[in-house]
Amino acid sequence: MPRGLFITLEGLDGSGKTTQIKRLGAWMARRGLAVIETRQPGGTAAGERIREILLDSRSGTLAPLTEVALAFAARAQAIVEVIEPALAAGKMVLCDRFTDSTEAYQGGGRELGSAIVLELHRLICGDLQPDLTLLLLPGFEASLARARRRNDRMEQATGTNEGRFEQEQDAFYRRVWQKYREIAAREPERVVLIEGDLGIDEVHEQIVEAVSERLVLAG
Amino acid sequence: MPRGLFITLEGLDGSGKTTQIKRLGAWMARRGLAVIETRQPGGTAAGERIREILLDSRSGTLAPLTEVALAFAARAQAIVEVIEPALAAGKMVLCDRFTDSTEAYQGGGRELGSAIVLELHRLICGDLQPDLTLLLLPGFEASLARARRRNDRMEQATGTNEGRFEQEQDAFYRRVWQKYREIAAREPERVVLIEGDLGIDEVHEQIVEAVSERLVLAG
Repeated sequence: MPRGLFITLEGLDGSGKTTQIKRLGAWMARRGLAVIETRQPGGTAAGERIREILLDSRSGTLAPLTEVALAFAARAQAIVEVIEPALAAGKMVLCDRFTDSTEAYQGGGRELGSAIVLELHRLICGDLQPDLTLLLLPGFEASLARARRRNDRMEQATGTNEGRFEQEQDAFYRRVWQKYREIAAREPERVVLIEGDLGIDEVHEQIVEAVSERLVLAG
Repeated sequence: MPRGLFITLEGLDGSGKTTQIKRLGAWMARRGLAVIETRQPGGTAAGERIREILLDSRSGTLAPLTEVALAFAARAQAIVEVIEPALAAGKMVLCDRFTDSTEAYQGGGRELGSAIVLELHRLICGDLQPDLTLLLLPGFEASLARARRRNDRMEQATGTNEGRFEQEQDAFYRRVWQKYREIAAREPERVVLIEGDLGIDEVHEQIVEAVSERLVLAG
């Protein structure tokens, strides 16, 4: 059985990753492909508990290296428990965030730099890389506005100040955005950059186009 | 102000580390030294939540690399929040387990090898090393018997099968024990090996002797 494709979606908060994963998953399922949808951090029992520590203000202020190690702990578990078994069984794996998020948020946003994140990836994830990464990244002002709208909605919905990352400043988001651009420029074969402040349907069309090419390549 | 000493206690489950830390802390306090006692994993709000994930069977079966990354996440947070500030303030820091435990349990017991643990230590902990490590390590049979007694007590006390590590097999403990011996042989300057199936008072005396030497050296 041919190995499945490992496809990750990346972007700032509010970029529409979750919506697009659902649309892409449905599109693949209609074409008879076996597909699973998962997310990082999370996706396993331990991973969801790790996610809570990362997002919950009761954890106190986490050191950037703590965030990085937690992200890789969740990832290590997801690889063994979810991602590798699915790929080996020929399934398409759609994952909401992966190591690029750690590089962008902790390497860029929290200024740890890329090198440590990439070294940890090598130690913890081995040679597992996404076959395709869809990076939803409008221009910085549009990205920031989306992240802020999302933050407002979350606060209204929960009555709390959920989401540690949403509390961060514009400068933080600018570093995250910039690091995502760097990753796309560094790995153009893997990363498809979907720019522009597009609507849901337009983004979906671009995603389907990129995925279709890979499916043809994968035979 | 002179920097405090960073002293770790290591050994298998049931080796008496916790008792000895209390005794040593009291001994230091009587001599007018400022001292804090902490433990790994744990010691911070986030760290204690990480500890729960590691020890709680609701986390499912954790991959060895997940355990390692979680251990270093807790450690990163403890360094920033607890250990470094205390050392900088001239306090003695007594820590129940540190990287040697990760090397012994995951590197040895779970057979990941030492290299990955030492590389992660370098990436996450930088050049922070204990000034002194007290390794409580009776011969293997005595160590195993103690670990088993502790496990029985824990099960009786909680009515559950607490403690993931306590459920492991003799072969696992043998690898942990062996790795601890390796560490002691590799770093004789740092690691003081306290062998023999000794009573609490005898161990305390040996600890006080080792610590006294370092205190003299540290001025």
